[in-house]
Amino acid sequence: MENRTATRGWNFKENKKLVSASGLTVRSVLNKLMSCVDPADTRPVIPLGHGDPSSFPCFRTTPIAEDAISDALHSATFNGYPSTVGILPARRAVAEYLSQDLPFNLSPDDIYLTIGCNQAIEVLLSALACPNSNILLPTPGFPYYEAWALFTHIEIRHFNLLPEKEWEVDLNAVESLADENTVAMVIINPGNPCGNIYTDQHLEKVAETARKLGILVIADEVYAHLAFGSKPFVPMGIFGSIAPVITLGSISKRWIVPGCRLGWLVTNDPNGILKEHGVIDSINGYLKISSDPPTFIQGAIPQILQKTKDDFFSKIVNMLREGADICYDRIKDVPCITCPSKPEGSMFVMVKLHLNLLKDIEDDLDFCLKLAKEESLIILPGVAVGLKNWLRITFACEPSYLEDGFQRLNSFYQRHAKKQ
Amino acid sequence: MENRTATRGWNFKENKKLVSASGLTVRSVLNKLMSCVDPADTRPVIPLGHGDPSSFPCFRTTPIAEDAISDALHSATFNGYPSTVGILPARRAVAEYLSQDLPFNLSPDDIYLTIGCNQAIEVLLSALACPNSNILLPTPGFPYYEAWALFTHIEIRHFNLLPEKEWEVDLNAVESLADENTVAMVIINPGNPCGNIYTDQHLEKVAETARKLGILVIADEVYAHLAFGSKPFVPMGIFGSIAPVITLGSISKRWIVPGCRLGWLVTNDPNGILKEHGVIDSINGYLKISSDPPTFIQGAIPQILQKTKDDFFSKIVNMLREGADICYDRIKDVPCITCPSKPEGSMFVMVKLHLNLLKDIEDDLDFCLKLAKEESLIILPGVAVGLKNWLRITFACEPSYLEDGFQRLNSFYQRHAKKQ
Repeated sequence: MENRTATRGWNFKENKKLVSASGLTVRSVLNKLMSCVDPADTRPVIPLGHGDPSSFPCFRTTPIAEDAISDALHSATFNGYPSTVGILPARRAVAEYLSQDLPFNLSPDDIYLTIGCNQAIEVLLSALACPNSNILLPTPGFPYYEAWALFTHIEIRHFNLLPEKEWEVDLNAVESLADENTVAMVIINPGNPCGNIYTDQHLEKVAETARKLGILVIADEVYAHLAFGSKPFVPMGIFGSIAPVITLGSISKRWIVPGCRLGWLVTNDPNGILKEHGVIDSINGYLKISSDPPTFIQGAIPQILQKTKDDFFSKIVNMLREGADICYDRIKDVPCITCPSKPEGSMFVMVKLHLNLLKDIEDDLDFCLKLAKEESLIILPGVAVGLKNWLRITFACEPSYLEDGFQRLNSFYQRHAKKQ
Repeated sequence: MENRTATRGWNFKENKKLVSASGLTVRSVLNKLMSCVDPADTRPVIPLGHGDPSSFPCFRTTPIAEDAISDALHSATFNGYPSTVGILPARRAVAEYLSQDLPFNLSPDDIYLTIGCNQAIEVLLSALACPNSNILLPTPGFPYYEAWALFTHIEIRHFNLLPEKEWEVDLNAVESLADENTVAMVIINPGNPCGNIYTDQHLEKVAETARKLGILVIADEVYAHLAFGSKPFVPMGIFGSIAPVITLGSISKRWIVPGCRLGWLVTNDPNGILKEHGVIDSINGYLKISSDPPTFIQGAIPQILQKTKDDFFSKIVNMLREGADICYDRIKDVPCITCPSKPEGSMFVMVKLHLNLLKDIEDDLDFCLKLAKEESLIILPGVAVGLKNWLRITFACEPSYLEDGFQRLNSFYQRHAKKQ
């Protein structure tokens, strides 16, 4: 036993870079808020911070998806390891599904299956992480991009989305930020966290700007087709002949199955520029050393994409429209928040927080922490998506919860309002 | 249109580090071999290169596993995002399952669910990748460790496994390789690629050496319980009070469901050394930015671990024993290969290739490429697991395929044998 104690200490230690990169995720902030909820409050927690309405019965996925997965599981043909890029029938099905909305046909070779859209971000940023490269990210945005850019040593440069222009990209800012080491810009459409939908005119300008700068467009379309306002959802891939577009998507949101973790990375690049410049080899390289979506879930993809009925999609979009309407109306009743434009897509809206109307709130995070503690109501502080003193509210929720949530928000406001 | 063409070129390029790191995986080599198979050969391909027998009907998983997953899927309670470390009931079930073989009880907080054992490797090496750190890896070994060490900039130092001592770790080499920047050593038991089982005496010496050097032991036990020789499988975690042990495992091999991608990373550290030194924070940090196993598969874990009957496990172990016996016998009939010791665990055996008996074979890779082309028989060249001019043969296969495979191997030998 002497030997065991009479030795030197331990060599391993904390990976500081990793611990700091991982502080940036929405999940981290939501976990912190949840830990503030008062266990003595007998009311249910109202979750308006998430992008996952699957726990509400009205947002349950279609039996077609569940049965397709179950059939694949019991077929005994999908128990083995998948190929690194995903199994061919699933890639073919995704290519056909996405090609419906494009002016050209995608091939299965344009499709890479990933563990949800999050892994698609991980794969792509890892592939793009050459020495000195930088990337242009939106403010506000989805902080998973920042986390992976930090972890893979890609320099981050932020451009603004313009609230007064329905959260369009500030393309002048994009042009002035880019240099010869800029490899890509990210757009998220339908918008997270802003709930906006981009017009095809704006998307074309994005592509033209990317072409001018020599960069590719990363089009995060995880909320694809969740559009319920005046503008239709238009995939960025349409403009892939102007500049290469890499689309990230998944079944998580449209089918309300984020727990399935099935997503994709898709190259919309009819001119073959990504292949020519080694990006395809890099993506394939990362996929060889990273993890795969379970094979039987991949095996279910053709059925899920081909068999799901329009009435399921309509039901979900109608639920979101109703939620957005309630949310937009009730926001007007709460003096300390204002909304620059009515949400038309995704599951969220961004509202500006007016601290000058509140007596004892320091900032948006303080607001959300106190709100969680006092009202068991979870709302995401804007700082978690890059915009301090704003709030991201989800309307993907049972209507009764939304109504209750806004009542609690109003009570909270009344209690903390500055006396006029 | 002028604008689009009269611009500079594209900024993005190949990520050379990534492309070279990813050349190291077993999958890359197997893909290369498969592409050599002659499409005109009407015989079935005989796959003796893989660690995945799930496509053989005799290795089909238990209906208990399939039904547990199907039930979780249809319960509508596992459609949402999981927590970053895995859902509590699943972690509790893994803790109980593994504690059965340990002298202390694991807590659910010791368990982190991962996407197969491969992601557990990814998570752990990413967590350990501090500047200047190095890791000790076995030769032969599992090249996924090399790939992630390279990708995360951990310096690799190799120690030998000793074929003349049933592939025990050369602990003298371990001691002479380690310095103050060495953070961990990897052992794989039951052995991949060697098919060996370590005695508890040897494992205790490994732990004592790790304690002396101030490093942790990464115990890759993905083949846990697949032992069919004279020695029982003993988990390394037993010695976690000597030096911290991080065990990596999964349901992939014992339940023959590698396509489910459900694994775990487990800290066996009753003295709390990993927490004290920041390793737990680093693991949690990486899990916050990495992908999760699908929620409903996690939801099925308690049923799978608690309800699977012993007769299923016995059936699988008996199949493997039968395969190992056939393999060991038939090897003796092929003059150009010899086997240092009979396999007692996992799904593989390592055999030495005697090039001096062959007239036109350059090395192990050349042997396997020609074998794939001429005989539609896939065997992994030793170079893919770090040992040049050896071969890794799997015996996890229908017996008739094994017999057929060795006949083809013998024909190949006869055709390429040097005239005496």
